Amino acid sequence: MRHFTSIRQLGSLEEALKAAKYVKENPFADQALGRNRTALLVFFNNSLRTRLSTQKAAMNLGMNVMVLDVNQGAWKLETERGVVMDGDKSEHLLEAIPVMGCYADVIGVRSFARFQSREDDYNEVILNQFIQYSGKPVFSMEAATRHPLQTLADILTIEEHKTKARPKVVMTWAPHPKALPQAVPNSFAEGLDMTGYDFVIANPEGYDLAPEFTRGIKVTHNQDEALEGADFVYAKNWASYEQYGQVLSKDMGWTVTSEKMALTDNAFFLHCLPVRRNMIVTDDVIESPRSLVIPEAANRVVAAQTILKMMLESL
Amino acid sequence: MRHFTSIRQLGSLEEALKAAKYVKENPFADQALGRNRTALLVFFNNSLRTRLSTQKAAMNLGMNVMVLDVNQGAWKLETERGVVMDGDKSEHLLEAIPVMGCYADVIGVRSFARFQSREDDYNEVILNQFIQYSGKPVFSMEAATRHPLQTLADILTIEEHKTKARPKVVMTWAPHPKALPQAVPNSFAEGLDMTGYDFVIANPEGYDLAPEFTRGIKVTHNQDEALEGADFVYAKNWASYEQYGQVLSKDMGWTVTSEKMALTDNAFFLHCLPVRRNMIVTDDVIESPRSLVIPEAANRVVAAQTILKMMLESL
Amino acid sequence: MRHFTSIRQLGSLEEALKAAKYVKENPFADQALGRNRTALLVFFNNSLRTRLSTQKAAMNLGMNVMVLDVNQGAWKLETERGVVMDGDKSEHLLEAIPVMGCYADVIGVRSFARFQSREDDYNEVILNQFIQYSGKPVFSMEAATRHPLQTLADILTIEEHKTKARPKVVMTWAPHPKALPQAVPNSFAEGLDMTGYDFVIANPEGYDLAPEFTRGIKVTHNQDEALEGADFVYAKNWASYEQYGQVLSKDMGWTVTSEKMALTDNAFFLHCLPVRRNMIVTDDVIESPRSLVIPEAANRVVAAQTILKMMLESL
Repeated sequence: MRHFTSIRQLGSLEEALKAAKYVKENPFADQALGRNRTALLVFFNNSLRTRLSTQKAAMNLGMNVMVLDVNQGAWKLETERGVVMDGDKSEHLLEAIPVMGCYADVIGVRSFARFQSREDDYNEVILNQFIQYSGKPVFSMEAATRHPLQTLADILTIEEHKTKARPKVVMTWAPHPKALPQAVPNSFAEGLDMTGYDFVIANPEGYDLAPEFTRGIKVTHNQDEALEGADFVYAKNWASYEQYGQVLSKDMGWTVTSEKMALTDNAFFLHCLPVRRNMIVTDDVIESPRSLVIPEAANRVVAAQTILKMMLESL
Repeated sequence: MRHFTSIRQLGSLEEALKAAKYVKENPFADQALGRNRTALLVFFNNSLRTRLSTQKAAMNLGMNVMVLDVNQGAWKLETERGVVMDGDKSEHLLEAIPVMGCYADVIGVRSFARFQSREDDYNEVILNQFIQYSGKPVFSMEAATRHPLQTLADILTIEEHKTKARPKVVMTWAPHPKALPQAVPNSFAEGLDMTGYDFVIANPEGYDLAPEFTRGIKVTHNQDEALEGADFVYAKNWASYEQYGQVLSKDMGWTVTSEKMALTDNAFFLHCLPVRRNMIVTDDVIESPRSLVIPEAANRVVAAQTILKMMLESL
Repeated sequence: MRHFTSIRQLGSLEEALKAAKYVKENPFADQALGRNRTALLVFFNNSLRTRLSTQKAAMNLGMNVMVLDVNQGAWKLETERGVVMDGDKSEHLLEAIPVMGCYADVIGVRSFARFQSREDDYNEVILNQFIQYSGKPVFSMEAATRHPLQTLADILTIEEHKTKARPKVVMTWAPHPKALPQAVPNSFAEGLDMTGYDFVIANPEGYDLAPEFTRGIKVTHNQDEALEGADFVYAKNWASYEQYGQVLSKDMGWTVTSEKMALTDNAFFLHCLPVRRNMIVTDDVIESPRSLVIPEAANRVVAAQTILKMMLESL
């Protein structure tokens, strides 16, 4: 595996979960792999979990880490080719990316959907320029359409808590004040499709995800029906794909409350965080003993370390 | 010692000073202790000395270090429980803190008084949430009411320069254009109370510190009288505790000048820095050979390393 | 060599290039030198290449690294002595610098020309305060008048690509929308003067560099004439030295185009980056196989590591 931008690139999810289990039990066992190797983590957007868990994962592997917040302390970057650069942008991605490549052995990139053009976002313009021009292995720390390190941590968390071979997992849309990208739900759908779980997506009309991510997956516009018998509830907001980037609804009838959780089979609650309390989920649900949001976040180190280890092994 | 938020938690100051002396002479002797341990330093506020000296201390101990500036590159954090999070804050401390706890072995927190509510500040709302929810040992890198790493460095510096067993130490208020927290003077009073020094606090009326920090300590409103025969002058501004957070005076008659220093017994000058020159202290006093501000700042590494070492030993 | 602020301090350029070659071939060979040593990198201005390449160089040498962005997360710094500090600046450089010195073994400083006073800029007020007050070896990561790490990387790149003992190197001014410092061209002129190359500077009238940097060097106001027979074209914008800090021309007739490059002897193209495309240089020239901007940037690690190694050897 040279680049890691989608959970599908793992090939065998089973093997990846086995590798993750090993990493979790032996976090410091592979420091020879990372010695004198540098991970460069490039952030075009905010980050808490990804920033810390990926640093931690790289250090566990004995790597050197450099963090670059592109919008703090570096230069404003031009992304369009052919432009006469007489404005406020001092540097072009076409130089900045290969330069970063010179200083790193692997590059992590966070670059959210910008909602200016569905085509640009779904073509992963920024991430793909890193792959094309950096000359180094690139991994996504959440790009415009996917967040595969999150998905790997999510599935690992489900695997650790499931009590049946084929649990029912419901990913439900929930309300949020602002337009959020589809990266997490797309990626979760992609990952769950690789499991044998009974997987259902519930969202209001107008919020269906891009068809390439939901092909063959049950989608319903009735949340209550979906929640029935669920073993895991994965809540997430996203903006509309069809009316791209629009907030069509803030319907608090979709908030995950204890009444909603009562419809399930005593389900666990999952969310990738950060979460808007009392919009996405009520205080009592997220604080309940069935909430897995913290172990799920803790598994972000394991997911990042598993992937970095695979990338180091391929160098 | 699990958490370190007050100099009083040291129990024996004498033992701590002995430990500090060892650390200063053998800065790299304990790297086995820190190996594969991660210190997460969380800043809600600006920092120069604390940021650098704590990183240095952790690295001297062989630890990995991650620095998080909460207001740069992370998410705006909600602190009130029960809020419908439909505003500009994307994440709740109740999630952010345990998440940070997952990625660290010890957590340093800088969180200044906000002067919105004396009760909230004096209850150390932010720091205590880290203690309650992170699941990890927490140390203060200056909180709302105390700055114990500073105090330890201060006392260490006095110990290194005193020429009598029981020096006279005067902490004097001095003018400043803005409202500053009471953390440093509170903490210094707390620490000096553990020594056998002759300790006096001088401040204008209306500037008495909170009674729990000055119990049994001599407080005067006459600076000249206090300075008489002093061996050490510790200058500091703070806003009023009684009229909480107010600037009641900018009286330049309290500035520490060479005329004021002439009242002392050729005293050393101390200040925690950053210092406003020619408000708190004149150029000539801070630049004089009796000024200890730089060795005092250098001792911040020793203080942080002493505390981190104790915390590592308790893990 | 205690401090490194000018390429002239290298004494023998030949020896330095030999040392650089060794470092490039053996990047991890000298980690014993840097063990338990801390490099503090202080940025008063933006940086991408310098930030990453200097961190990388220090880590290659086994050092600990701390990065301080003065304008992010630290305190606003006063630089004038004698001021009553009652404004928005909380700390004076006269304290901040020796404090930083306490926490570091070597200090890198980036501090651009501010264009408020030619005298202040050309006296290197900030950099020299670090040298005077930090108590530690200081190296320039681009100061007001020179960028010697860049120059060393530039010459190394020319050495690696030249096909004659005495190549013709042309440094040409090119248009830019904003006023840029003269540090890079000054420093390049200073460095090239130490080589045996045929060196020519081409710039419009009013753009002659400070005489101390061009003494004995060919300067022409005719770009086409200069480019004739060139083996290397080094493009760079700078603001006027004579009418200090002014932008006197944005003449796109000085942009480096393929027509201009056709005048040369199939020259290589160099630029320190960041570069404004289609102002300084056209897309086709910078993307051509004769463009060396990326290997030149890669050599920044080598340059920084060569200098840091020399500084460590002198500790």
